[in-house]
Amino acid sequence: MRTGIWLIGARGSVAVTATVGALAVRARLTDTTGCVTELPPLRVPSLPAWTDLVIGGHDVVTTPVLKKAEALAAAGVVPARLVAALHDELTAHENDLRPLPSAATQGETAALIAADLTAFRRRYTLDTVVVVNVSTTEPAPHPHAAHDHLDTLADALRRSHPVLPASALAAYAAFTADCAYVEFTPSTGARLPALDELARRRGVPYAGCDGKTGETLVKSVLAPMFALRNLRVRSWSGLNLLGGGDGANLADPAANAAKVASKQRVLADALGYQPEGTSRIDYVEDIGDFKTAWDLVTFSGFLGTGMRLEFTWHGCDSALAAPLVLDLARLTAAAHRAGRSGPLPELGFFFKDPLGDGPSALAEQWAELTAFVAAL
Amino acid sequence: MRTGIWLIGARGSVAVTATVGALAVRARLTDTTGCVTELPPLRVPSLPAWTDLVIGGHDVVTTPVLKKAEALAAAGVVPARLVAALHDELTAHENDLRPLPSAATQGETAALIAADLTAFRRRYTLDTVVVVNVSTTEPAPHPHAAHDHLDTLADALRRSHPVLPASALAAYAAFTADCAYVEFTPSTGARLPALDELARRRGVPYAGCDGKTGETLVKSVLAPMFALRNLRVRSWSGLNLLGGGDGANLADPAANAAKVASKQRVLADALGYQPEGTSRIDYVEDIGDFKTAWDLVTFSGFLGTGMRLEFTWHGCDSALAAPLVLDLARLTAAAHRAGRSGPLPELGFFFKDPLGDGPSALAEQWAELTAFVAAL
Amino acid sequence: MRTGIWLIGARGSVAVTATVGALAVRARLTDTTGCVTELPPLRVPSLPAWTDLVIGGHDVVTTPVLKKAEALAAAGVVPARLVAALHDELTAHENDLRPLPSAATQGETAALIAADLTAFRRRYTLDTVVVVNVSTTEPAPHPHAAHDHLDTLADALRRSHPVLPASALAAYAAFTADCAYVEFTPSTGARLPALDELARRRGVPYAGCDGKTGETLVKSVLAPMFALRNLRVRSWSGLNLLGGGDGANLADPAANAAKVASKQRVLADALGYQPEGTSRIDYVEDIGDFKTAWDLVTFSGFLGTGMRLEFTWHGCDSALAAPLVLDLARLTAAAHRAGRSGPLPELGFFFKDPLGDGPSALAEQWAELTAFVAAL
Amino acid sequence: MRTGIWLIGARGSVAVTATVGALAVRARLTDTTGCVTELPPLRVPSLPAWTDLVIGGHDVVTTPVLKKAEALAAAGVVPARLVAALHDELTAHENDLRPLPSAATQGETAALIAADLTAFRRRYTLDTVVVVNVSTTEPAPHPHAAHDHLDTLADALRRSHPVLPASALAAYAAFTADCAYVEFTPSTGARLPALDELARRRGVPYAGCDGKTGETLVKSVLAPMFALRNLRVRSWSGLNLLGGGDGANLADPAANAAKVASKQRVLADALGYQPEGTSRIDYVEDIGDFKTAWDLVTFSGFLGTGMRLEFTWHGCDSALAAPLVLDLARLTAAAHRAGRSGPLPELGFFFKDPLGDGPSALAEQWAELTAFVAAL
Repeated sequence: MRTGIWLIGARGSVAVTATVGALAVRARLTDTTGCVTELPPLRVPSLPAWTDLVIGGHDVVTTPVLKKAEALAAAGVVPARLVAALHDELTAHENDLRPLPSAATQGETAALIAADLTAFRRRYTLDTVVVVNVSTTEPAPHPHAAHDHLDTLADALRRSHPVLPASALAAYAAFTADCAYVEFTPSTGARLPALDELARRRGVPYAGCDGKTGETLVKSVLAPMFALRNLRVRSWSGLNLLGGGDGANLADPAANAAKVASKQRVLADALGYQPEGTSRIDYVEDIGDFKTAWDLVTFSGFLGTGMRLEFTWHGCDSALAAPLVLDLARLTAAAHRAGRSGPLPELGFFFKDPLGDGPSALAEQWAELTAFVAAL
Repeated sequence: MRTGIWLIGARGSVAVTATVGALAVRARLTDTTGCVTELPPLRVPSLPAWTDLVIGGHDVVTTPVLKKAEALAAAGVVPARLVAALHDELTAHENDLRPLPSAATQGETAALIAADLTAFRRRYTLDTVVVVNVSTTEPAPHPHAAHDHLDTLADALRRSHPVLPASALAAYAAFTADCAYVEFTPSTGARLPALDELARRRGVPYAGCDGKTGETLVKSVLAPMFALRNLRVRSWSGLNLLGGGDGANLADPAANAAKVASKQRVLADALGYQPEGTSRIDYVEDIGDFKTAWDLVTFSGFLGTGMRLEFTWHGCDSALAAPLVLDLARLTAAAHRAGRSGPLPELGFFFKDPLGDGPSALAEQWAELTAFVAAL
Repeated sequence: MRTGIWLIGARGSVAVTATVGALAVRARLTDTTGCVTELPPLRVPSLPAWTDLVIGGHDVVTTPVLKKAEALAAAGVVPARLVAALHDELTAHENDLRPLPSAATQGETAALIAADLTAFRRRYTLDTVVVVNVSTTEPAPHPHAAHDHLDTLADALRRSHPVLPASALAAYAAFTADCAYVEFTPSTGARLPALDELARRRGVPYAGCDGKTGETLVKSVLAPMFALRNLRVRSWSGLNLLGGGDGANLADPAANAAKVASKQRVLADALGYQPEGTSRIDYVEDIGDFKTAWDLVTFSGFLGTGMRLEFTWHGCDSALAAPLVLDLARLTAAAHRAGRSGPLPELGFFFKDPLGDGPSALAEQWAELTAFVAAL
Repeated sequence: MRTGIWLIGARGSVAVTATVGALAVRARLTDTTGCVTELPPLRVPSLPAWTDLVIGGHDVVTTPVLKKAEALAAAGVVPARLVAALHDELTAHENDLRPLPSAATQGETAALIAADLTAFRRRYTLDTVVVVNVSTTEPAPHPHAAHDHLDTLADALRRSHPVLPASALAAYAAFTADCAYVEFTPSTGARLPALDELARRRGVPYAGCDGKTGETLVKSVLAPMFALRNLRVRSWSGLNLLGGGDGANLADPAANAAKVASKQRVLADALGYQPEGTSRIDYVEDIGDFKTAWDLVTFSGFLGTGMRLEFTWHGCDSALAAPLVLDLARLTAAAHRAGRSGPLPELGFFFKDPLGDGPSALAEQWAELTAFVAAL
């Protein structure tokens, strides 16, 4: 099953780490640590093999992939030896990247995006293409009547005034080109009624939103722990310090707000109530890709006794996200091939803010995921 | 279903917190935060009601329960208002406590313990009595041939040389008096072939070992998190600082070793390999009942990138343990009544070092527990 | 030397803790832990004795002091046994508290405040009165021409439009009543040219601003440590979580901004440059008086190697501030008696944002303080 | 002033980092971050210039320095670009390293060591040579009568039975060759009466012991902070996790004990009493050179209110130690030239366990150091 992975934001840290990693695994230069689809219950023949994956993508920036990979190596995100060993492959990879199109109307832009996707599919005779958005987080969009119905949306896209945020336009283009779509950021992506209608009509699946890479991953196991012990969480406050491109973007209050809301949702879901406290994000350039998050949880136990848990997470976001991007592409491709269309809520394991009403506790999400894979 | 809870170590912090709590819940002076058996899937009619519980116990010390309760209130473990409101009940409770017997042979001691249990059962017309060991941790015992067969053991107990550690002798006495037994400490308790044989012969169940109250509870959700994400845990090191009676006892190297082994076991079980590192316990009198544990986890992700997680747990051991003691007594009593005898591995949710080969991940233990309760 | 301490905000947590403490020390019910003026080099005869201190004050709220003291005891800030033992003294203390006056013009209000101060002085035949502002933090004031000259200010105070923030009006009133003034909060207090002119003219000293009780105290020793080792601090970020009255007030963005600026100033002073990062304050009601602050410092050493220091401070603000309030009152009274007028920059040891250009490293501030006391 | 630095343990992490650093600073490839002697008050003409330093040394291992430097670069301790740029210098440096001599008696071994020192001095026409011990920590030695008098020692060294630990033998050899000596580890070094006698007789100075690089550095500013605020430290407990060669050695209980004692001494000195608690060291190979130390301090304030401070230090020991080794060599050489002999207690700023009765608070040690340098 020849499978294309088309990355929106293909020259960013997550995309280039994923690209280096996919090439390195294929060349047997590294193992598959961090790849969930390599764990026994998920390692099934219906997933595309590593050797069947081809990566392409769009980006608005033009930094050469090799140069970006070298910068990631200097920052300790990927090993320098891999970048050196994959020099030729990373240079050749430039041929599969395209500048993100931009035209007079969003409809025309979508058509150009779709044309790039179709060309990619033909060039490599791909059975399936999965578009994955790993570009920077957008502010939450303003509601618009065109978001609710596909017909209205199609009309609106012909006018000069944009109605869709960039991520949703990418999802629209993906669906018109019969590609599946994964929203790895907290942006809108396919999560509009009009886009859901389109995905179902074209018979393609989609997944999202917001890859669960760090602090929220820890929350998704600690919050259920308190719930299962009938301990009352009184407050849960956190501070995320991060540099790098994502950090700079999140310093923008609107993007920050979108991300922060996504981070606290897991608590209400797992606990059944919303404890006091907020989760903040601050940009600290010096911290670079190695995000540091500190959380303080105050809780009470039997007879009201007050207690506390603190944790500090020092994680490399790109190294945590990249294997999940590859996992999601493989799983979504297999789902597409198995005839699934519309949302894939069973992939909630991977997301901070999953589609549908699935569980938010990691262990329950894992149970859903393994059942989903077994049924493919 | 009139149910007796007989606590070995009935004047200690855990026991007195459990006693205050049980009386307070019955008098509707507090809620049931921290009690797992009050969560929806476990709150079933087959469990004894709070009003059906009667508490008694043995201890080697003679501190009045009321005085101990006042000391716990001064230390912030239980609310002073509850101790004041329960003044009469706590005073009356003295009548249900007995000095721990001691005779020339362990056989005679066991007979005296059993006689106290039988008298307790008769006094309150109890359907079931569950003996719960909450006394201080023993050193790991030396192996002895008498541990393997009930006949050999019965012979050995008649001689003057002791062959059983105190916890195992308590289990022996409990079984001969047709009582169930719960080992809440890391001590031996019922975990000897001869005692298992006795429990099955008398038709009584037993559970254990080592209540999962703090650092290990957190480990039991974090270790599976790493496993489910295919992240490689490279080292896991911890330091537990605690005062109080348990802390002083654990400063004894032999008891410490028993406890520490129990604390690292969850890692190998959940991860499938034993990472580097140890978990230490230090006695710091000033810290009192509010234990502080710090853990550092180093792990690697995709392409070998090194990352870290630290957590600090500030928990009140007695406030965490006491509701579990009551939960375990209710569950074990219900199991006894339902005809179960021998080990109850389905109660692994509550323990650091559970009986049997059950899962060590908290979520899987929860699934086993809810199935067990549903079948009662 | 009979010395009056007049607290603005006399029914708040800091003031009531200071009052309970001063009464308890005088009655020999507690020791003087936390009182800097009891350390050998500062324990000099020129300071007023504990038995010479009389406390009074203003407040806008009317909660009885005894009730507030009981609430502080319930929260673990002061021992319940002291509140019980001082029942009569705390009840009698009501007689020395007055509602904060409010009149048609700020000039008239100041006159009423001054009249209360004079009455207090006469009632107890006090040699000196020190007014200490421990009320909630104000937003930074808008600049006004009347702030610069005493004559202009006197004119402006006669008009109906207010020109001074409450703290500065209190300082104005204090000076007109020949009282010294200590600004314990980040508010303006005496820090206006017109007020400085008045203080010098009346021959009274003043001190401030913003008592250094927690996170900033730690910063004032850690930042010099990095400087003395020639280590380069790259970023310093922090999150302060606090409940209680001060926390609620600081949730107001304007007050928050004033406080946060004061918190980062020490870094630039001690390091000689301003590292990246901010110090945030979040209100978490559940945390109450026991503030938790987490700081992350990233720094580089020889050959640019990146390293990190994190700390978490769990401090009780009122218990940290109260003895400093008493220290400052004793020191300022002694300085007044010794003939000092105008600012007392030598008291920088106590403040986050000291008057004058003194050192910000704690050890250097200590050297200045001991020299100041030796010269009294 | 041509100055030789002779490192015992010249192929270890600290030594090679210091060597790379000294070469890089001389070649203007890096700045002097981390070098205390480059701070304004210490940057005086009486110190040898960077271009006047020549490094040589002994070691028992034979790993090429270049290979070790490359390993340090791979571990992130030194930048790979510096190792590449200094390839030729690091290769040439091999000529200045010698295997650590070993002969039939300790007297003969000392003579061989001294001969290597003399040859080094002649080869480079050095005015002064400072021997610095950066080899692994020894267990505390058994007392021996020969340690007390130089004559007795000289006799004993002629016999076959060794009486000095290796570090003391190195100091002995250094002094006989008219070289100064710095003990950078917690080992004995020059701290024996017989060696002190020898140093004074030969007119050479010595300094030590145990470079203050991480957790103890932080303690030396935090402990005085509590003291200056009259806060009562109740317990201070710590865990140091470290890998690398030093870590493996410290896993040996005897070496560990020597190090741990040195770590707690600062507390008693700065506080005036010894709080509860211990500082542990555990070897965790995965942590490598980037040591992680966690400390918990419990303390009480006014009216006995209990509070806490925690810190975590993630430091690279070699990057912290190397510039101090160069600082100490420069300062000791200047002292030697200025006619100082015997102990240099004024260098206590650099050590966990300084010679003499000097202050343990970092700020006071700094004051002593600047006075010392001003007088050179």
